[in-house]
Amino acid sequence: MLSENYRWNQMIQFQCDYNEGCHPLILEALRKTNMEQTVGYGEDDYCEMARQAIRKAVGSDDVDVHFLVGGTQANTTVISSVLRPHQGVLAADTGHVSVHETGAIEHTGHKVLVLPSCNGKIDATQIKAAIDSHYAEDGPEHMVQPGMVYISFPTEVGSVYSKKELQDISSVCRHYGLPLFVDGARLGYGLCSQGCDVTMETLAQCCDVFYIGGTKVGALFGEAVVIVNNSLKRDFRYFIKQQGGMLAKGRLLGLQFLTLFTDNLYYSISRHAIDMAMLLKNGLQQLGVRFYAESPTNQQFVVLDNATLQRMEQDFVLSPWMRIDDKHTVVRICTSWATKEENVNKLLQAIKKN
Amino acid sequence: MLSENYRWNQMIQFQCDYNEGCHPLILEALRKTNMEQTVGYGEDDYCEMARQAIRKAVGSDDVDVHFLVGGTQANTTVISSVLRPHQGVLAADTGHVSVHETGAIEHTGHKVLVLPSCNGKIDATQIKAAIDSHYAEDGPEHMVQPGMVYISFPTEVGSVYSKKELQDISSVCRHYGLPLFVDGARLGYGLCSQGCDVTMETLAQCCDVFYIGGTKVGALFGEAVVIVNNSLKRDFRYFIKQQGGMLAKGRLLGLQFLTLFTDNLYYSISRHAIDMAMLLKNGLQQLGVRFYAESPTNQQFVVLDNATLQRMEQDFVLSPWMRIDDKHTVVRICTSWATKEENVNKLLQAIKKN
Amino acid sequence: MLSENYRWNQMIQFQCDYNEGCHPLILEALRKTNMEQTVGYGEDDYCEMARQAIRKAVGSDDVDVHFLVGGTQANTTVISSVLRPHQGVLAADTGHVSVHETGAIEHTGHKVLVLPSCNGKIDATQIKAAIDSHYAEDGPEHMVQPGMVYISFPTEVGSVYSKKELQDISSVCRHYGLPLFVDGARLGYGLCSQGCDVTMETLAQCCDVFYIGGTKVGALFGEAVVIVNNSLKRDFRYFIKQQGGMLAKGRLLGLQFLTLFTDNLYYSISRHAIDMAMLLKNGLQQLGVRFYAESPTNQQFVVLDNATLQRMEQDFVLSPWMRIDDKHTVVRICTSWATKEENVNKLLQAIKKN
Amino acid sequence: MLSENYRWNQMIQFQCDYNEGCHPLILEALRKTNMEQTVGYGEDDYCEMARQAIRKAVGSDDVDVHFLVGGTQANTTVISSVLRPHQGVLAADTGHVSVHETGAIEHTGHKVLVLPSCNGKIDATQIKAAIDSHYAEDGPEHMVQPGMVYISFPTEVGSVYSKKELQDISSVCRHYGLPLFVDGARLGYGLCSQGCDVTMETLAQCCDVFYIGGTKVGALFGEAVVIVNNSLKRDFRYFIKQQGGMLAKGRLLGLQFLTLFTDNLYYSISRHAIDMAMLLKNGLQQLGVRFYAESPTNQQFVVLDNATLQRMEQDFVLSPWMRIDDKHTVVRICTSWATKEENVNKLLQAIKKN
Repeated sequence: MLSENYRWNQMIQFQCDYNEGCHPLILEALRKTNMEQTVGYGEDDYCEMARQAIRKAVGSDDVDVHFLVGGTQANTTVISSVLRPHQGVLAADTGHVSVHETGAIEHTGHKVLVLPSCNGKIDATQIKAAIDSHYAEDGPEHMVQPGMVYISFPTEVGSVYSKKELQDISSVCRHYGLPLFVDGARLGYGLCSQGCDVTMETLAQCCDVFYIGGTKVGALFGEAVVIVNNSLKRDFRYFIKQQGGMLAKGRLLGLQFLTLFTDNLYYSISRHAIDMAMLLKNGLQQLGVRFYAESPTNQQFVVLDNATLQRMEQDFVLSPWMRIDDKHTVVRICTSWATKEENVNKLLQAIKKN
Repeated sequence: MLSENYRWNQMIQFQCDYNEGCHPLILEALRKTNMEQTVGYGEDDYCEMARQAIRKAVGSDDVDVHFLVGGTQANTTVISSVLRPHQGVLAADTGHVSVHETGAIEHTGHKVLVLPSCNGKIDATQIKAAIDSHYAEDGPEHMVQPGMVYISFPTEVGSVYSKKELQDISSVCRHYGLPLFVDGARLGYGLCSQGCDVTMETLAQCCDVFYIGGTKVGALFGEAVVIVNNSLKRDFRYFIKQQGGMLAKGRLLGLQFLTLFTDNLYYSISRHAIDMAMLLKNGLQQLGVRFYAESPTNQQFVVLDNATLQRMEQDFVLSPWMRIDDKHTVVRICTSWATKEENVNKLLQAIKKN
Repeated sequence: MLSENYRWNQMIQFQCDYNEGCHPLILEALRKTNMEQTVGYGEDDYCEMARQAIRKAVGSDDVDVHFLVGGTQANTTVISSVLRPHQGVLAADTGHVSVHETGAIEHTGHKVLVLPSCNGKIDATQIKAAIDSHYAEDGPEHMVQPGMVYISFPTEVGSVYSKKELQDISSVCRHYGLPLFVDGARLGYGLCSQGCDVTMETLAQCCDVFYIGGTKVGALFGEAVVIVNNSLKRDFRYFIKQQGGMLAKGRLLGLQFLTLFTDNLYYSISRHAIDMAMLLKNGLQQLGVRFYAESPTNQQFVVLDNATLQRMEQDFVLSPWMRIDDKHTVVRICTSWATKEENVNKLLQAIKKN
Repeated sequence: MLSENYRWNQMIQFQCDYNEGCHPLILEALRKTNMEQTVGYGEDDYCEMARQAIRKAVGSDDVDVHFLVGGTQANTTVISSVLRPHQGVLAADTGHVSVHETGAIEHTGHKVLVLPSCNGKIDATQIKAAIDSHYAEDGPEHMVQPGMVYISFPTEVGSVYSKKELQDISSVCRHYGLPLFVDGARLGYGLCSQGCDVTMETLAQCCDVFYIGGTKVGALFGEAVVIVNNSLKRDFRYFIKQQGGMLAKGRLLGLQFLTLFTDNLYYSISRHAIDMAMLLKNGLQQLGVRFYAESPTNQQFVVLDNATLQRMEQDFVLSPWMRIDDKHTVVRICTSWATKEENVNKLLQAIKKN
């Protein structure tokens, strides 16, 4: 294993957006405060200051903010805190909770009610139809009741919802009393994508609860869960603890988010990732590379013939997504806050040599 | 909230062993490697090197090592991976899983079968009796079946098991086929306590699975789960992921444990905590302070009259443990790898002034 | 196994209150309606008529009534429908849910928070103290939150709560917003016991939800869950179905409870059981037999020396409850709606011969 | 509600196979033994005799037999006893556990991994592909591991697997070590269908565990779970109890299955249901009615125009299955052990009048 990994260390990695450590300013903040004594479990000053900074960023003093370590934990903690035992969560068939969390939601007793997605997204009409059809059944109590809606922003395939789409989904959810939860593991990369008309404020207006991803956007780790709906706020710290998500040295999360939400760092590093993604995308388009999905964000999905892919994998770590036929593979290429322009250029050069 | 915390920041904190950040060498390791690219989810070189270092420390190449973020997560992941649905875990009534994890074990479907503890410990005889009495029932299937044993080393009240006690418990467990799990959130402080005849090797010999605590012993966060019993190794990464414990940037855990297990750092910083605890203990004894429990480790439990406690709380943060009568309170005082000798002396001075 | 059981069949059984089938009137109702066609899942006329009869019996038109097959199922379905994930149910340490349901409550994710019982009962003061002490903790979110209260009427050791005791418990529960649930597996035997000042109406006034036991009181099987609190009514049929408790031929339950609640059958057969229990109790007292607990209901707990017990077990099936010393055993002796007076006399005769 | 039900009572019901009570011989057995005293929880003579009768019927002395009350309970108890926490059950998208049990499987923590079905069936190739594709993933631990296979015999749409199909599925399951579980809620109707080459013995050879449905085949209620695989037998009674499925008066289940498996009653009444279904099917075919699925069993799925359906619903209760266009509906028509030939003829007459 060591030898194989050793080779990876010589390679340029584009396979995900958590290859590096953290933004240097975060490391500096950890260093400066390292020997300070603070209380634990997120009740220290840094957490409180980070909460205030996030409240300002989302444009509301009336939201609860909690810091969790990772995305699966955030999804599971939020979803299992919202649903009653007989309810499930509506989600895209490609959603992270549907596929890539080892059944963490089911482990808490709830079914993920999947809806077919289009370019990673589901829409208000589908959600409405799913709810209506549940209650139209002769004996709805024989089936899992839709209890909330989960979407990702951006989605698993890099697409983003428009403000209009979000508002429509939100309207349906409110009409039926189903909380709307937005997984923002890559939130910055969505908000800073070209043409995006959604802002933090939009999320605070449309969602009942959402989270701001840190792990993939400059932090060592950490997600900030923002609870907008008052009825979901109560006792949330119990849920965090029960799910094993209450970090003893909570200040680590506070310090990171405080840094990310000081001087717009979260946005500026997100924009860098998007700039790198667009440099890559434009370059690939000019080289005639076929795209599998239209993505304005930091994840680009391209179709490579297997020979090219194999050649590329000498020097680059990419993320094969799926085989589409015997000769071609969809490959995910990720940029991030840490991506170096020279590496994007090297990648383009390498593809060009084809 | 800010103002109250602000006062705390001026105070000297002895209420727990996670008040500070991490050992400077860990911070340095994070800094040095920050912009390196690694693969995620604990499959990087640093994790692998840390695993090797731990295998060496426990004296066995044949153990699996996994890194998790925190203690509740480690306990829940291990216990729910071992038990079948109708089984529960035998534990001291004062055990962390019994009391202080918001029912995380029950949340995974399992009862904690509590045994009365003596100075925080349970013994082989009790465990044997609990198992025997289960099967002596007319219809044992109407009750939860004991499926494993959980103990803490050191315990919640700072005591440590002797090698003989551990071996006896291990014998009973093996006789009945119940895995033995040792929660080592404060493992270093137990191993380095005066008179302790237990070593890492002892644990690897007596336990089926145990963990080496990092959060409370010099790391920013992290626990290293060591699986000794082959039958418990299979698919453990699935359980980590399902419990939300698979850190994307797994290298953070690898780097920390690699640092802790280089040049015996884990032991030297643990010894410092014990030195500070003994300085405190001896000082308090000389001052005639009454002890609630006999602890050779970093947690000392003393009985203070409420007036003294109130006065102390002007300058020190302590951890009131329980009221024993109208006028007296048991107080926990913790040292750690980070405790400064001058602060221990200040504490003793302050009590003296009484 | 067959041979051992065969002997039992020759013996007179006093070990429980479900040794026989059902009251003959119930069998007759099943026979008469056997080939009628009805809709399933409890939506037939018989269920509806039984609901009406029960509403009349409890003195309220405003309660929901659901029929479930058995007691463990009823307890689990009700409790898991009421609690949120971080909550547990307060119960006597001797409570059925605490001990004799193979961790069914924990299996749904919830801790049973046990309180020490006195003659099988817990009281308002204890409940209040448990809730207060939870919130008095520094970090209550590290512990399971009390979310409801469970008591049995009569209790596991045959005692009954007085009206005053029930009202006091109810007051505390309402003050703190914790639903009160009464397990009435043997409800008839409690209500018809001597000196009992509690009625069905009392239960409907004091409880948020309770159930009327059929299995042990004349039915083949079945428990009628009565939901008083409006906020607990919603979607209850989903919970029944999810717990596997929605009987396809729901009419079997409707027919049984309709029969039991026609012409006061439920009460008259309950009174017979009490008459037999008092005949037994008085007889035993005259014989100088020592009682382990004071019970006015159909379960009597006596202390027998082991020689007597062994001799009795030649002809009678009794239920050894626990050994109290090397020479004595507590034995439970149950009467029921089906107990024959001649068998009680035979039992007394047999003890007398001692 | 009463008035609406009242109308139903005048109508002829074909909407399901649990409209009536039980076969008269069962009622007679209950009557005859009603006042006998037996021990509880399935440990009485009748249960034991029924077990022996079933062992004989399946051609193996080496199977464990347990009696449960209903189908959802049987499915949940078996599946949750087999799977480890990170595993899911492979099932047809139309399977009962996938759709109609209010997420009971998810409630125990496990995902139902759905496979697209063809005429209600899944095949060995699909199962193999699903398992292979799981392990072909880069990080399989991020997904739920296939842990067992569930199929229904007959399926939800009335089709039956051939012996060859079952054997192929069994081979794949054994190759990968995944237990095969067959839901036989309507087992008799499958085994007695025309052209069926599967027998009870086949099931005992191919499955690891299956159940013999009683509720829909002549009993008041009850399913007999047959465990073939030794490794699944241990502690099963704990699971029954924990799931609330251990009937106090277990003899009710024993008596029913003993009656069903005496003098081939189970088969003769199943054949009657099939005779009635074929009478219906042939009659409808002659009338030119279109069939939605090809079913040789007691459930027939026909396409009716909405006007006909509405007219039929004056006198008959049928089960609308789904709308296929604005003018047509798929309707399920069920026969059972209790179906009267005259009612089938009335139904055919009524359709003819169209």
